[in-house]
Amino acid sequence: MRHDHLITSKQLSRGDIETVLDRAAEIDADPSAVADRHANTLLGLLFFEPSTRTKMSFETAMKRLGGDVVDMGSVESSSVKKGETLADTVRVIEGYTDALVLRHPKQGAATMASEFVDVPLLNAGDGAGHHPTQTMLDLYTIRENAGLDDLTIGIMGDLKYGRTVHSLAHALTNFETQQHFISPESLQLPREVVYDLHQRQDGTGIKEHESLEGVLPSLDVLYVTRIQRERFPDENEYQKVAGEYQIDAETLEAASDDLTVMHPLPRVDEIAPEIDDTDYAAYFDQAHNGVPVRMALLDLLLSDDRGIRGETDE
Amino acid sequence: MRHDHLITSKQLSRGDIETVLDRAAEIDADPSAVADRHANTLLGLLFFEPSTRTKMSFETAMKRLGGDVVDMGSVESSSVKKGETLADTVRVIEGYTDALVLRHPKQGAATMASEFVDVPLLNAGDGAGHHPTQTMLDLYTIRENAGLDDLTIGIMGDLKYGRTVHSLAHALTNFETQQHFISPESLQLPREVVYDLHQRQDGTGIKEHESLEGVLPSLDVLYVTRIQRERFPDENEYQKVAGEYQIDAETLEAASDDLTVMHPLPRVDEIAPEIDDTDYAAYFDQAHNGVPVRMALLDLLLSDDRGIRGETDE
Amino acid sequence: MRHDHLITSKQLSRGDIETVLDRAAEIDADPSAVADRHANTLLGLLFFEPSTRTKMSFETAMKRLGGDVVDMGSVESSSVKKGETLADTVRVIEGYTDALVLRHPKQGAATMASEFVDVPLLNAGDGAGHHPTQTMLDLYTIRENAGLDDLTIGIMGDLKYGRTVHSLAHALTNFETQQHFISPESLQLPREVVYDLHQRQDGTGIKEHESLEGVLPSLDVLYVTRIQRERFPDENEYQKVAGEYQIDAETLEAASDDLTVMHPLPRVDEIAPEIDDTDYAAYFDQAHNGVPVRMALLDLLLSDDRGIRGETDE
Repeated sequence: MRHDHLITSKQLSRGDIETVLDRAAEIDADPSAVADRHANTLLGLLFFEPSTRTKMSFETAMKRLGGDVVDMGSVESSSVKKGETLADTVRVIEGYTDALVLRHPKQGAATMASEFVDVPLLNAGDGAGHHPTQTMLDLYTIRENAGLDDLTIGIMGDLKYGRTVHSLAHALTNFETQQHFISPESLQLPREVVYDLHQRQDGTGIKEHESLEGVLPSLDVLYVTRIQRERFPDENEYQKVAGEYQIDAETLEAASDDLTVMHPLPRVDEIAPEIDDTDYAAYFDQAHNGVPVRMALLDLLLSDDRGIRGETDE
Repeated sequence: MRHDHLITSKQLSRGDIETVLDRAAEIDADPSAVADRHANTLLGLLFFEPSTRTKMSFETAMKRLGGDVVDMGSVESSSVKKGETLADTVRVIEGYTDALVLRHPKQGAATMASEFVDVPLLNAGDGAGHHPTQTMLDLYTIRENAGLDDLTIGIMGDLKYGRTVHSLAHALTNFETQQHFISPESLQLPREVVYDLHQRQDGTGIKEHESLEGVLPSLDVLYVTRIQRERFPDENEYQKVAGEYQIDAETLEAASDDLTVMHPLPRVDEIAPEIDDTDYAAYFDQAHNGVPVRMALLDLLLSDDRGIRGETDE
Repeated sequence: MRHDHLITSKQLSRGDIETVLDRAAEIDADPSAVADRHANTLLGLLFFEPSTRTKMSFETAMKRLGGDVVDMGSVESSSVKKGETLADTVRVIEGYTDALVLRHPKQGAATMASEFVDVPLLNAGDGAGHHPTQTMLDLYTIRENAGLDDLTIGIMGDLKYGRTVHSLAHALTNFETQQHFISPESLQLPREVVYDLHQRQDGTGIKEHESLEGVLPSLDVLYVTRIQRERFPDENEYQKVAGEYQIDAETLEAASDDLTVMHPLPRVDEIAPEIDDTDYAAYFDQAHNGVPVRMALLDLLLSDDRGIRGETDE
C-alpha cells in the first residue's frame, strides 16, 4: 500500500505505522541530520477550526525540516466567508504550497479535499472523524515507554466523544494489546466503536470498566482524557463523575512502578500536578513527540520517493 | 520612468508592464533559480482589511525568493486601535523590514503611506482605489493564454463596484484590445470609467452589452466576476440577474474552442463546476499566477538596481 | 551574575546593561555579520495580550539572526480557553522551541513561567509589572543620542500608570543621571516608585514638576508618554491636562539645540508632526532600535555560552 495523503490512521497497516514511528525515532535521535532536508518547501496551513497545539507543532515540524509555512489564518478573514467551497479553497492554495494540512469541522472534509489536490494533504482533524497525527504521536509515546506488543493499556475518561480515543483504540488493534476502557456509564465508548474493535481483535483484548481500581495494577500505560463539564446538564453530577476519574499520588500507590501516564492535553483536573515530576508522567513528552512524529510524516510524504509505504504491508 | 513603489497599474507604461510580465515568465519557468535570491530579506505585511488570498500569495512569493515576512496581524490587535496614524505605523514598521505590502480600506492610503517610507511599498488594495498586483496577474494570465495584442475580451458581471475590473480595463488600453463589457444595466461600468477608457483608446475598442449571447463567439477571453447578493434589495431581482450571467457547459457551446475563461475568485455560482476540468478554465492557473507575478514585482523592487523600469517607457 | 532568563530590567546590573547595549551596537553596525548566527533556531511567541510592535520587533530580531518564530496566536484560539494553566502551556511549547517570549496580563507571570522551563524566557510585559526589552531599547537610544552618564532627562506625561516609565527610571539609577518627572498632579509617579528611586539614588537625582517650562532648557533628553483619555472621567479635564503636556515647535524654542525627544509610541497628540523631521526627533529611531536590542538579548541568551553576564557585575 502506498499513501500519498494522510487522512485517517485506519488507512495505515502495522507496517505503515512502523515505518512512520521508525522514521520519527531516527529524526528524534538526530534532528540536525534533517535540518535542511526540505529547504525551500512550503506547507500550507488550513485550519477552519481553532487549534494551537496541533498547528504549532506542524509549523515547528516543517521549520525543523528546513522549510516554512503559509497560514490561511482564521476563517473570519478568509474567502470562505464569501461563500467559497472547500474544493475551490484547497485548489487555490495548493498552487502556492508543496503540501497542505487541513483541519475542518465537517467529518469527511479531508477525504473530499484530497480528491481535488495533487500535493500531499494531511488531515489535522475533521470534526468527529479522524486525527491521525495525534494517534501516531500517541503510538510513538507508547512504543518508547512500554512497547506496542504485549501491552496492557487503560484508556480512561470521556470515551464517548473523544475522537482521539477512538482512533488510538483502533490503531492499537494492529498490535497485541489488552485494552481496558474506564469511564462512567454515560461516557462509555459508542457501541459501534466497540463493535468495530471486536471485529478487528478477538474479544478478549477489549474490556470495559466503570472503575479504575480493579484494573490499575495490571496496566503498563494509563491514558487519561478530559471529562468536559459541558457534557453534563447538572454541575453536581459533573463533580461526582469527574472526581472519580482523577489521578493523584494516592491513586497511583496501587500502580506498577513502570506505569506510564499519558494525556493528550490540555488537562484541567484529571491529573494532579504532583504527578508531573514523577517517573509516571509522560504527557509533556507525549506533546513534544508531536514534533518528530509530524516531521516523519511530512518527510515521508514530501520526499522524492513519495508516500507512506510500510515494508510489511498486509 | 522608474518606479520605486507600486501604487497603481495606471502608473505603468506598456514597457513597464512587459518588464514585469517577462520577469514573471522567467521565474515561472525556473523558480529554483531565484530560490535564495532575496535571502535575509523581510517583507512587512500591513493588512488593515482582511485578505487571505492576496496575503498568502505575497507571503508565498517572498518565501519562494528565499526571504521571509513579518505580519502586523489584524487591526484589532494593533496600535491603530490606540489612535496611531497610518503615517506613524508605516514609519515604525519600515524600520523592521526591507519592503512593505499595504492593504487599507481608504482610497489613496497607499499613495500617502509611500510618501513617508524609504523602502519599496506595494499597494495590495486601497478601498475603491487600486489593486495593481491583481491586474498584473490578470494580464499575465491573458498573455499566456491569448496574447495581449489583437485580443478580444469580454468582461462580465458586476462592473460597477469591481475595482479589479476597472484596473484591468484601464491596463488593457496599453495594448491593441477590443473590450466588451457585459452586465445588467444596474451594474454597468461607472460613466467616469467609460469616459476614462475612451480617452485612452479610440471608441471602437470599447463596447457595452446587457447580454453575453451576441458577443460570445468572438471572444478570446471571457473574464467573469461575482455579482454580490448584497447589492440587491430584492432577492428575486438578484436571482434573475445573477442567473443570466452564469456560465455552464451549455453556455459555452457557442464559444470558440480557444476561449479562455477567467475569474478573480472566489466564485459562488458564476461558473459551473463542470467547466473546471475543461480547457476553457484558466481561473485556478490565474490564482496560482499570483505567485510568479508577485515574485517578479518584489524582485524588481528589491534588487540592487531597484525599481520597475520598462525598456520602452513612453 | 548570570541571567538565563530576562524577567525584569531590575535584575540587571550596570555591567549587564552595558554588555547588552554593547552587543546591540555591534549588531547595529554590521547586521550581516549575524545574519545566519542562529539558523535553525525557533523562538516561541506567547502573547496572552495583544501587541503588534513588540511582537513584530521580536519576530524581526529572531529572523534577522537567521532563525524563525512559532506563534501561539491569540488566546481566543488557544488551549487557554479550555482551562489550561500557564505552567502547562509553557511546558508544552518549550518542547517545540529554543526560547520563549511571553506577554501576559498578570504581574509575575513571567517569573512563574520561567520556573517551569529550561529554555530562555524573555518577558515582553507582565501586566503592571515589567517590560525589560522596552527599557533596554530606551537606554540604547539615550546612550546613542546623549550618553548615559552626566545625563539630564525629563520624563513627561502619564507617570502614574506607565510601566515603561517606572522601569526606565529605575534602570537609569545605575548611571549618573538627573531625572525630572513632569506630570499633572493626578498622574504623578506612585509614591512607592519615588521611594524606590530614592533608595537607589541620592535624592538630588530626582525631581518632580507640574510644568515643563522651568526645566526644559536644562534637558539632554525629553521622554514623552501618552496621556490616556480613559484615565479621565471628564472630557474637559482630559483636554486641559493633555494640552499642557504636548510638544510642538514653539515649545521647543526654549530647549537646547542638542535636545533629544523620545516617545515609546504609539503617540496621539503628544508630539506635533512638525517635530518629526527635526534633529530633536528620535522616536522613530527609538522604535527601530527595538530590533538590534532584541537581537542582542536573544543572541546573548541563545549562544553556547548562555546568559547575560556583565563584565562589571556588582
